[in-house]
Amino acid sequence: MAKVNFTEKLSHFSDHWSPKVIAEMNDYQFKLVKIKGDFVWHNHADTDEAFIILEGSMFIELEDEVIELNEGEMYVVPKGVNHKPYALEECKVMLVEPKGVLNTGNATSNLTASNDVWI
Amino acid sequence: MAKVNFTEKLSHFSDHWSPKVIAEMNDYQFKLVKIKGDFVWHNHADTDEAFIILEGSMFIELEDEVIELNEGEMYVVPKGVNHKPYALEECKVMLVEPKGVLNTGNATSNLTASNDVWI
Repeated sequence: MAKVNFTEKLSHFSDHWSPKVIAEMNDYQFKLVKIKGDFVWHNHADTDEAFIILEGSMFIELEDEVIELNEGEMYVVPKGVNHKPYALEECKVMLVEPKGVLNTGNATSNLTASNDVWI
Repeated sequence: MAKVNFTEKLSHFSDHWSPKVIAEMNDYQFKLVKIKGDFVWHNHADTDEAFIILEGSMFIELEDEVIELNEGEMYVVPKGVNHKPYALEECKVMLVEPKGVLNTGNATSNLTASNDVWI
């Protein structure tokens, strides 16, 4: 594989809530996503999900607290835990999770994105 | 879990080539490591290994090329591929790999670090 430059990859898309794959490691994928506004409440029954903040700030609302994440911070949502990501301004995030995980998890939503979209 | 701030975690140690665990996702770990100078040639027979550069520059020498990695870049070394990481000046890196992976892989070296050292 070639090395990946986050800034270069982020320049290739502008849509929100639509993760793009940039690398694979075993059966896991690294994905970049730009987010703004509210996502839907959902959970991933079978896997944890890592959020790494590349630029900006975002929030992960859990049932009993809200996690604020800024550039240079990360958080792992445990499997099965309901969460609602949101961002007041555009935030650029790297996700790490197994291949095949739907962004909206168990929720039915028009925000469900296609998997395996590489940039 | 609590969120992780990379700068805060990096302030807790200064040794080189000794990865510290900062988060787990399923059976994978996120580790921070400070590197400087030459590491040993090695490979990981059973797993890919992801390098994400947080600050500085490093190189990954492969058998037929050298990958230069700068802040905001990442590279995944495929399983079984011989590689020698090195850095001319101190470089701060996040590794992502399965739990239990030894930093020196198949090599016998006094640079082999203990696993599961959390900060």
